[in-house]
Amino acid sequence: MTRSDGRAADQLRPVTIERGWSEQAEGSALISFGRTKVLCTASFTNGVPRWLTGKGKGWVTAEYAMLPRSTNDRMDRESVKGKIGGRTHEISRLIGRSLRAVIDTKALGENTIVIDCDVLQADGGTRTAAITGAYVALVDAVEWGRSQGFIGKNAKALIDSVSAVSVGIIDGEPLLDLAYVEDVRAETDMNVVVTGRGLFVEVQGTAEGAPFDRRELDALLDLAVGGAADLSRLQAEALA
Amino acid sequence: MTRSDGRAADQLRPVTIERGWSEQAEGSALISFGRTKVLCTASFTNGVPRWLTGKGKGWVTAEYAMLPRSTNDRMDRESVKGKIGGRTHEISRLIGRSLRAVIDTKALGENTIVIDCDVLQADGGTRTAAITGAYVALVDAVEWGRSQGFIGKNAKALIDSVSAVSVGIIDGEPLLDLAYVEDVRAETDMNVVVTGRGLFVEVQGTAEGAPFDRRELDALLDLAVGGAADLSRLQAEALA
Amino acid sequence: MTRSDGRAADQLRPVTIERGWSEQAEGSALISFGRTKVLCTASFTNGVPRWLTGKGKGWVTAEYAMLPRSTNDRMDRESVKGKIGGRTHEISRLIGRSLRAVIDTKALGENTIVIDCDVLQADGGTRTAAITGAYVALVDAVEWGRSQGFIGKNAKALIDSVSAVSVGIIDGEPLLDLAYVEDVRAETDMNVVVTGRGLFVEVQGTAEGAPFDRRELDALLDLAVGGAADLSRLQAEALA
Amino acid sequence: MTRSDGRAADQLRPVTIERGWSEQAEGSALISFGRTKVLCTASFTNGVPRWLTGKGKGWVTAEYAMLPRSTNDRMDRESVKGKIGGRTHEISRLIGRSLRAVIDTKALGENTIVIDCDVLQADGGTRTAAITGAYVALVDAVEWGRSQGFIGKNAKALIDSVSAVSVGIIDGEPLLDLAYVEDVRAETDMNVVVTGRGLFVEVQGTAEGAPFDRRELDALLDLAVGGAADLSRLQAEALA
Amino acid sequence: MTRSDGRAADQLRPVTIERGWSEQAEGSALISFGRTKVLCTASFTNGVPRWLTGKGKGWVTAEYAMLPRSTNDRMDRESVKGKIGGRTHEISRLIGRSLRAVIDTKALGENTIVIDCDVLQADGGTRTAAITGAYVALVDAVEWGRSQGFIGKNAKALIDSVSAVSVGIIDGEPLLDLAYVEDVRAETDMNVVVTGRGLFVEVQGTAEGAPFDRRELDALLDLAVGGAADLSRLQAEALA
Amino acid sequence: MTRSDGRAADQLRPVTIERGWSEQAEGSALISFGRTKVLCTASFTNGVPRWLTGKGKGWVTAEYAMLPRSTNDRMDRESVKGKIGGRTHEISRLIGRSLRAVIDTKALGENTIVIDCDVLQADGGTRTAAITGAYVALVDAVEWGRSQGFIGKNAKALIDSVSAVSVGIIDGEPLLDLAYVEDVRAETDMNVVVTGRGLFVEVQGTAEGAPFDRRELDALLDLAVGGAADLSRLQAEALA
Repeated sequence: MTRSDGRAADQLRPVTIERGWSEQAEGSALISFGRTKVLCTASFTNGVPRWLTGKGKGWVTAEYAMLPRSTNDRMDRESVKGKIGGRTHEISRLIGRSLRAVIDTKALGENTIVIDCDVLQADGGTRTAAITGAYVALVDAVEWGRSQGFIGKNAKALIDSVSAVSVGIIDGEPLLDLAYVEDVRAETDMNVVVTGRGLFVEVQGTAEGAPFDRRELDALLDLAVGGAADLSRLQAEALA
Repeated sequence: MTRSDGRAADQLRPVTIERGWSEQAEGSALISFGRTKVLCTASFTNGVPRWLTGKGKGWVTAEYAMLPRSTNDRMDRESVKGKIGGRTHEISRLIGRSLRAVIDTKALGENTIVIDCDVLQADGGTRTAAITGAYVALVDAVEWGRSQGFIGKNAKALIDSVSAVSVGIIDGEPLLDLAYVEDVRAETDMNVVVTGRGLFVEVQGTAEGAPFDRRELDALLDLAVGGAADLSRLQAEALA
Repeated sequence: MTRSDGRAADQLRPVTIERGWSEQAEGSALISFGRTKVLCTASFTNGVPRWLTGKGKGWVTAEYAMLPRSTNDRMDRESVKGKIGGRTHEISRLIGRSLRAVIDTKALGENTIVIDCDVLQADGGTRTAAITGAYVALVDAVEWGRSQGFIGKNAKALIDSVSAVSVGIIDGEPLLDLAYVEDVRAETDMNVVVTGRGLFVEVQGTAEGAPFDRRELDALLDLAVGGAADLSRLQAEALA
Repeated sequence: MTRSDGRAADQLRPVTIERGWSEQAEGSALISFGRTKVLCTASFTNGVPRWLTGKGKGWVTAEYAMLPRSTNDRMDRESVKGKIGGRTHEISRLIGRSLRAVIDTKALGENTIVIDCDVLQADGGTRTAAITGAYVALVDAVEWGRSQGFIGKNAKALIDSVSAVSVGIIDGEPLLDLAYVEDVRAETDMNVVVTGRGLFVEVQGTAEGAPFDRRELDALLDLAVGGAADLSRLQAEALA
Repeated sequence: MTRSDGRAADQLRPVTIERGWSEQAEGSALISFGRTKVLCTASFTNGVPRWLTGKGKGWVTAEYAMLPRSTNDRMDRESVKGKIGGRTHEISRLIGRSLRAVIDTKALGENTIVIDCDVLQADGGTRTAAITGAYVALVDAVEWGRSQGFIGKNAKALIDSVSAVSVGIIDGEPLLDLAYVEDVRAETDMNVVVTGRGLFVEVQGTAEGAPFDRRELDALLDLAVGGAADLSRLQAEALA
Repeated sequence: MTRSDGRAADQLRPVTIERGWSEQAEGSALISFGRTKVLCTASFTNGVPRWLTGKGKGWVTAEYAMLPRSTNDRMDRESVKGKIGGRTHEISRLIGRSLRAVIDTKALGENTIVIDCDVLQADGGTRTAAITGAYVALVDAVEWGRSQGFIGKNAKALIDSVSAVSVGIIDGEPLLDLAYVEDVRAETDMNVVVTGRGLFVEVQGTAEGAPFDRRELDALLDLAVGGAADLSRLQAEALA
């Protein structure tokens, strides 16, 4: 099988990470996976929500959204509809959990970091690009907090890095980092969040068409771990 | 390690399925996984939403909700808050996808089945109990539709059965079907949706504490497949 | 006239009260009036809403809701619609007022009890079943509060019992406890809330068809007082 | 007992009805019960909501609201809060039912009349003033519809008149048409909707303090019937 | 050109200001510009919103709304729709800014005045009538606050008066104070808020049809300044 | 007075227009006025909203929004709050009116163009940058519609160009194109929308501090007309 853009089955789309794209946020990155572009900003606040106060722990959370014309057909704005859809909620929660997996909230201290991931252009893999870019923004926000004295000089608030990638099965073949045209054809679709050390934070596999067996699941996980290692390297380069 | 209720690591809690609990729905089941109780009702309507009309296909969808005092502490009602939370959305979508995985929408014909899963009492595993009970309600709704002539006499609308179970790692040990007290302690938590034939529909694993490695993932999947086989047998008995 | 289920004009449907159905609430009852089934739970909290703080008084309030497929045709969820309908509001307020009529808020002390009445199956008389079951849950919640030391040992927080029943006129004949098929045919429909001592807490009569005269009103009140006395006895048995 | 404004127990406050106050509505009345002022407008539309189409029947409905500073202390606007409170819903529904009780929807034909009752100043009895004024606006809207040929020349769309009045018990004494200062002191509060012929449309009695007995209920109904007869006469004068 | 009501191009419609129309508000005025009628009430509260506390300054804000049948065709209520439209927001903000332009918040002290402008009947110019009437209500609320000792005896909280008027171009001719039938025909529409001393607070000109040039803009401003001077005099008379 | 960035009083900030930034929209532009960056996309649909159908006219509308961290301090998302604020509504309406002023809806035919203006980074002048960039996106969407045959080959749908600029008075001096630090200090703030031919579409002047006189108004208009001419030239270059 040849992929629409000629990539190998285990090859990522071209990835770019523009660190510090936003001049006002404490951390930011404009990340692209092929035509998918996500602006990730990290907002640092000294202090935590009331329910966490006095526990000596910090808080990291995330919000995901798509611009109305990030997609091929214009979608209605969730602000205009007056409510947030299930998919948006689900992805926001996924990003937050993924980032918290590499944060030591004790070392972070009583500080809050909110990561906003806004999809400027969508061509498949928006949630995985968001997680991957959010990590870069998060690192800079933590360093900003340290530079201001809100985080201890030697506090190891980040205990690992984290990135994410989609994998799927099309016509029986496992493929890495699906573009939108591939995503709609996939029988099985999986998003995998992996730390820099190669451990799993999230594994979310869904049979869109026929259910999948254990052997297919294994092949997808292998692909994902490989792709995540590439992303981890690209994050390190951006942060160098 | 001994579990709080003395179960073996690979043992389900006592499961009961009261088929036809609701006298007014086309299909229904009151299912319990230990103290967790979920009322599942299936509502059959001839016809499909406008966006599907004329395609010769049916539609199955689901809504999940918790009664305010199904939990240990009373929660505010989502109807009073005026919006549905992310977790509710996420689980409703999961149940719907799980059921659609075993439905042949062509054979179903232009009919709609809405499954409501309302948690009357929650003690961990509400989403997996909901999926398992929803399948029983779905079977009866399909048969009701057939008895009314809305579904062809020999149309094989259901192509497999489906059930779900949670698994998790506590103190390094993989355990099946977590009760609430176990769930809050789990380092890794996974919900697995499996068909009667043993294929995967959904695999959703999350590191609540430390990230997990491939060996742990494999152990959890083994446990889940075993538990789902037990549930599949109990569904068959309830439907006999 | 013969009633659809063969009852006498002044006869209640079969009433069952399963006290303590919910294992997690401080008080609960699953009550049925014929096919109508309502789950009532009482949640006890030490403390009162801010606007009551420091006045030495407690607070009792109630919320009523119907499961989407409690009815013959599925209704949309109010949580999905994002707002609560007028009927739901009205009944929640009615239940709250009815319970407060038998509570001595001074004796209750600065404690709050929230009663949730969720209709699992609806066949007419859901609000009257809700009030009748809610009283049973309330009694147990008060006793729970006493057992925890939140309510004084001898404080007489409950000054009477309370139950409710519907009455109506069909084809000129006054009937007690209308089932749904009767309710839709009634010219006049009345819900009456009565204390154990036989005093009125609420009288809500509505001409659905032709307006009614004083003689008809009197006949309905007579029937209601009789039915309420039966319910009061059944409550006492459940609480024995 | 002397009332705050020196009235007899069975005496209404001064009532004025300015028919046609609004120059743009098909019917209108600015009604006052003492300091309570309600602007009632009736909007006539040829045609009915979709669910009624083709049944040869009309529809009458009502909406009630209070201006934010109609009360002694300013209330937040329901439009700003983004939802309508239970009390508003309840009263809107009551007004609608009261008016429909005197309308022959067949004779009205497939026409819709919406009555808006906006409280400009509130001093107790706003719902009863609203019903009483709404009837006057309704009569004019029906006549407007007839003049335009939407209602048959001899069609008897209005089969009776309707008005409403509050009654209550203060310090054991039954009183007619409670002003706000009386309303807050009342042990029992009742709103009664009566037709011009003296029949009951609604009887809504609530024990705010101690429950009431049958003798008190009878005394309140006697008072209400007398007050409604006075209002009926004043309506006729306004419409003359 | 002759105007529909025979007015000269630079002539206001008949203006009436019924000061103190509402008996419960600290200040109020029922103002009419021809058939346009707006009820303005001012609610005085000692204290300020939390974000202003401790700064020694007061706060003045405004809310504008239309009754559903103030217009020729009935509009849906914003409270029923569950959200406030853009136009309503825009006008509320305009009124608030206009009033704050003539208030010395330091002299007002830590007090809040909320002005509600509810349109009872709309025939063009509702926002300008609202501002003009709101000023009268504001003056009385300030004096009430002074009489209660919340505002210093000699504190000059009001530093000027303020009124507003609409102007527009129809068939090339600039006209003052457009009635609704004129407003819909205007090529250019401008609302101008002017202080008693003749200074501008707001100038909002919009080309509804063809864009306008500098000469037209100048002619409109001349007309507006003249109309505002008339309104300023009428305000002074009402407050005398 | 020296401006914070050393500009002359009548000088724009550096303006860049990246035409076609979005690969999926029918027209798009990423515009920057200094650090203010707005992504404008135009979505073309054949057909019009129902209320316009059959009139042979097209429709152009706009929606404006800010990313939560476009500002110095993170704002809550309007989608999360569940409602759109007054400022957002106001600006969306302003952009729509501005664009419609240069569109001949008859020549556009029954087609709809929705312009989305999303502020990625905010440093004053977001609404004026949005209008200026939206025009560029609009031109490309019109040409796209023509290329698809939805708009006639020679139909002159765009009758002029349009841009916008802010002006204000600081310390008595009129300044062009205020950056955020200037905006907060301005006594008077004006947004002016001007066509390529130099005619006014909107003039919105507000006294934030002291009211302004006619002479100041004239000076501001002169500045704005000059700035708009510069913007008009830059638009032409981007579209060349």
